Amino acid sequence: MSTGTESTSPRRRGRRPAGEDTRRALLDAARRSFAEHGFAGATVRAIAAEAGVDAAMVNHWFGGKEGLFASAMELPLDPKRVGEILLTGPLEQMGERIVRTFLGVWDGAGGGAFVALMRSASSNETAARMLREFISTLVFGPIARRVGPDRPALRAALCGTQIAGLGMVRYVIKLEPLASADHDTLAAAVAPNLQRYLTGDIGPTSTPT
Amino acid sequence: MSTGTESTSPRRRGRRPAGEDTRRALLDAARRSFAEHGFAGATVRAIAAEAGVDAAMVNHWFGGKEGLFASAMELPLDPKRVGEILLTGPLEQMGERIVRTFLGVWDGAGGGAFVALMRSASSNETAARMLREFISTLVFGPIARRVGPDRPALRAALCGTQIAGLGMVRYVIKLEPLASADHDTLAAAVAPNLQRYLTGDIGPTSTPT
Repeated sequence: MSTGTESTSPRRRGRRPAGEDTRRALLDAARRSFAEHGFAGATVRAIAAEAGVDAAMVNHWFGGKEGLFASAMELPLDPKRVGEILLTGPLEQMGERIVRTFLGVWDGAGGGAFVALMRSASSNETAARMLREFISTLVFGPIARRVGPDRPALRAALCGTQIAGLGMVRYVIKLEPLASADHDTLAAAVAPNLQRYLTGDIGPTSTPT
Repeated sequence: MSTGTESTSPRRRGRRPAGEDTRRALLDAARRSFAEHGFAGATVRAIAAEAGVDAAMVNHWFGGKEGLFASAMELPLDPKRVGEILLTGPLEQMGERIVRTFLGVWDGAGGGAFVALMRSASSNETAARMLREFISTLVFGPIARRVGPDRPALRAALCGTQIAGLGMVRYVIKLEPLASADHDTLAAAVAPNLQRYLTGDIGPTSTPT
């Protein structure tokens, strides 16, 4: 993957060629660092230093720490873009935007990325922990903060059950007629349930006795 | 695990001791047969013959073909018992019964069985196909038939998304506060959404153009 620009590429520890090799070195360093320190604990600076490249390369190749994480985890979505789409527009249509956004991203990737993600999360406690932290911090955290003061974390997690399950049944179990249903049909069926989790009456939380 | 009854145990192909060895031989034969022929195509008679035991041993050890399948797949539920629980009682409380039944079974097994099932379904196309067929035929099929004529298979699959996702978030991703929420809290939050999938207005199915 020599691009002829090696001589001008940033270097910290030893020689690193630019282009795809930089990208790959960053991904390798990111996987180690995120696995060791979690999403919040890992720093772009330390990852870039370990990869032997300038920290600006993270923005160049991945658009920031979130994108680096998503690529390192081979997540089937760009969390920053998804977050923006979800948080734009009226609150009372957020359920529909969530369904259409995830279906669009996952169908676009052929469903294989979702299957890989589930395989990794169910086989590997580190992957499950990273996914948990990632979902809380980057996708459902902002959604929950927007829905208001009534148990936002529980509401966000409930949305997570519906979205994860939609992916499971559509891409992993491939149960018909849902696996082949179009987005309009699924949005009409699923969006009101998500909307209830976001802004509706979800009943009381039992007090532990 | 010799029980002293070997001399009267049924034999087809060679000698088979009774008890645990019979059970194990049936499970081995069942896994091969279900993988090759699917749930519907495999027969108890052929499985018993391959295991070298009488077909009555399937009822004795597993209560029938469904239970044999569940044990062979290490499914975290007894489908026949679950089906009975789900189908007993008023239709308008079915959503709540589904949530409480699955949580009871899965929490009772410590959640590990659910994780193993997801790992197997996302790693292995044969396991995914068997799970799909099993869910359609034995769990959601009967539920769907009871809910009436309006797109029962879609309604059943939608219930599947909610139940599979509840398991994913609670046992695989372990996202709080949902992972530690008690059954009353989760039933209040999730049951109305399941009930809508079963008996509510799920919108139109788009006609493909």
